[in-house]
Amino acid sequence: MAAVSPLAPKSTPEIPPIDGVRFATGMAGLRHKDRTDVMLALFDKGTKVAGVFTRSKCASAPVDWCRARLPRGRARALVVNSGNANAFTGKAGGEAARRVAALAAEAAHLSPSEIFLASTGVIGEPLDTAKFSGLFEKLVDEASPAGLLPAAKAIMTTDTYPKVAAAKARLGDVEIAIAGMAKGAGMIAPDMATMLAFVFTDAPIGAEALQDLLQRSVEGSFNAITVDGDTSTSDTLLLFATGAAAKRGAPKIAASSDRRLKAFRTALDEVLCDLAHQVVKDGEGARKFVKVTVEGAVTKRSAKTIARSIANSPLVKTAIAGEDANWGRIVMAVGKAGEPADRDRLAISFGDIRVAHKGSRDPSYDEAKVAALMRQPEIDIRVDLGLGKGTATMFTCDLTKDYVEINGDYRS
Amino acid sequence: MAAVSPLAPKSTPEIPPIDGVRFATGMAGLRHKDRTDVMLALFDKGTKVAGVFTRSKCASAPVDWCRARLPRGRARALVVNSGNANAFTGKAGGEAARRVAALAAEAAHLSPSEIFLASTGVIGEPLDTAKFSGLFEKLVDEASPAGLLPAAKAIMTTDTYPKVAAAKARLGDVEIAIAGMAKGAGMIAPDMATMLAFVFTDAPIGAEALQDLLQRSVEGSFNAITVDGDTSTSDTLLLFATGAAAKRGAPKIAASSDRRLKAFRTALDEVLCDLAHQVVKDGEGARKFVKVTVEGAVTKRSAKTIARSIANSPLVKTAIAGEDANWGRIVMAVGKAGEPADRDRLAISFGDIRVAHKGSRDPSYDEAKVAALMRQPEIDIRVDLGLGKGTATMFTCDLTKDYVEINGDYRS
Repeated sequence: MAAVSPLAPKSTPEIPPIDGVRFATGMAGLRHKDRTDVMLALFDKGTKVAGVFTRSKCASAPVDWCRARLPRGRARALVVNSGNANAFTGKAGGEAARRVAALAAEAAHLSPSEIFLASTGVIGEPLDTAKFSGLFEKLVDEASPAGLLPAAKAIMTTDTYPKVAAAKARLGDVEIAIAGMAKGAGMIAPDMATMLAFVFTDAPIGAEALQDLLQRSVEGSFNAITVDGDTSTSDTLLLFATGAAAKRGAPKIAASSDRRLKAFRTALDEVLCDLAHQVVKDGEGARKFVKVTVEGAVTKRSAKTIARSIANSPLVKTAIAGEDANWGRIVMAVGKAGEPADRDRLAISFGDIRVAHKGSRDPSYDEAKVAALMRQPEIDIRVDLGLGKGTATMFTCDLTKDYVEINGDYRS
Repeated sequence: MAAVSPLAPKSTPEIPPIDGVRFATGMAGLRHKDRTDVMLALFDKGTKVAGVFTRSKCASAPVDWCRARLPRGRARALVVNSGNANAFTGKAGGEAARRVAALAAEAAHLSPSEIFLASTGVIGEPLDTAKFSGLFEKLVDEASPAGLLPAAKAIMTTDTYPKVAAAKARLGDVEIAIAGMAKGAGMIAPDMATMLAFVFTDAPIGAEALQDLLQRSVEGSFNAITVDGDTSTSDTLLLFATGAAAKRGAPKIAASSDRRLKAFRTALDEVLCDLAHQVVKDGEGARKFVKVTVEGAVTKRSAKTIARSIANSPLVKTAIAGEDANWGRIVMAVGKAGEPADRDRLAISFGDIRVAHKGSRDPSYDEAKVAALMRQPEIDIRVDLGLGKGTATMFTCDLTKDYVEINGDYRS
């Protein structure tokens, strides 16, 4: 089970340094010894930040901390630990978050209010902040622009590979860079319910515009993935813009509607989708990467609800694990979504092969060809409702016995 | 996997004959040879019927058929087949349903409009009605009041045991009887997505009152169970009242508010809950029967949404399979439900042992005692939100590797 996911990228992409960002990692020994479990990112003065967080009503203490600081839009540092989620830790959890921010602030000569926090690991155990003592001074000394990949490794929990992505784009006449990391073995993991992603750019974009860009980009990336429909208490996605590219002549952007952002938008979408898909590909026990596209729904929102119903259905996901083109279960998942659907207009395809249309089996489809498709590591499911123009896509993985093994533990 | 579920009842209860109902079973060879796959129930003149059906937008042809006939409230026969669900079969599916009703009507000298239908089995394959030819004449001849248990066996698909239940109650000064059957290996089963239940009584209750009684009773029974959250295209629950007890002096009841129905109500709840729990206990791969009670929610509806979120969570269900009292995952499932919840007021118990309260771990709980509880076949989870008076209970089973095996097939 510790082996790397068969869906992992074949190679790690080259990550450009982001002007104005430095990384360092350390070992606090929060859960495991002999591995890095803390990462510090330091940002140049003037860095803006945008963020989106879990919608859980039981959010972790670091999520509370970030939410309270986000409206100011300014960041000078990010501290992330693995091994302990500091979630469901009561009042002490809030105090622990404050203590970590204070320790990092002191070491880096910053105000705690400019420090963002995230934690991932066991839920419900107090975070022992004494283990951070003296650590941040060392990390501040060592921080380097080249440290993104080691930082991505330090925040892993049950992940089988570090998740990084990067893209470049023109802003005015200047090339800017975007790079990011994510962790999450599925949206969730045993005792360590966390999906974290951090993205960095040197583009000079104001905080409000940045927040707007992030929210739009997240809809088709992180909000379009699911491993098992279990939303974590700690989901955190932060986007930091140092603005350092302004020194090289990049225009300062204040509004997300600025047309000069076109290439940046595309590059941001690319990085977020890449990271989001890597999270699905490391889904616990996953052996198939599945794209579910719903077309012809009455609205985009309706399409997404139906796509999510298919992507979360245990019966659809176990069928894919079994390489079974079981479209009857897709009909079931469309039907249970509660959205407008007309059984007798429904068409379903696997890849290019239509297996059902007008409410019954397509008599002309070739079972052998579909079977060959189902043996591939990437499965493309397309549902046409034939009602309107609403379209949406969700990405998921199959549900295998390894998922149950990883999460069931079978202590008995 | 073919063995009987370890959660199956230790013995089959005694089923009283229901005055006015006769059963017969036959072999149409729809999918398997050498097993019964059709059951016919014949009702005396004057029998009333109530029903509730799947909310799926892709309902099966027999569900369409029953929905269209239900408003008249009258029934003289019920025909159920296993082996083929007659779902997602297009126009031909509707015609097949009509044909089956016509064949049964002819054999029993009835009008097709008084015949109710249900089918369970493979989705998307045409139902070959030629296989019913000549069968119903034989069934009409053989029908007997004692045939409920064989009928329950004829409608099984991946069920590992037949599900029957019965109760008696006083109506006025007369003892009336209720007996029923259900099928479903979970709410759903591979290629045969169906949960069916049929309940019979000799109580003389009008159709409108019967419908009202059924809808109320279903909320705490069949609408309070989940195996994997996948709603079938064919879910059908029908309640037939022959009224034959009127001959013995039972009062005729026209309104569901009639106070003389008190004992009948309790007995109906009992039979429906018994059948519903038997469905969960035959949940695919199930080894634990789990009761999830949510208290202290702002409303009853909110409590039920949260209980359902916990009962459907793959992480909670795999933890239970692993006999792991992983309350962090229950916090997660409460948080993701989207209902009002205050992390810092939450209390969670397994059986009598409170493991978390006021938003963090209960420092006094004994891990060894909880571990012993988790090894039991029945697990009782209680969540107190501390906000209001809303309470609800859901019943579910654990998520094991056998579930994945049964549904994944692993053809590769």
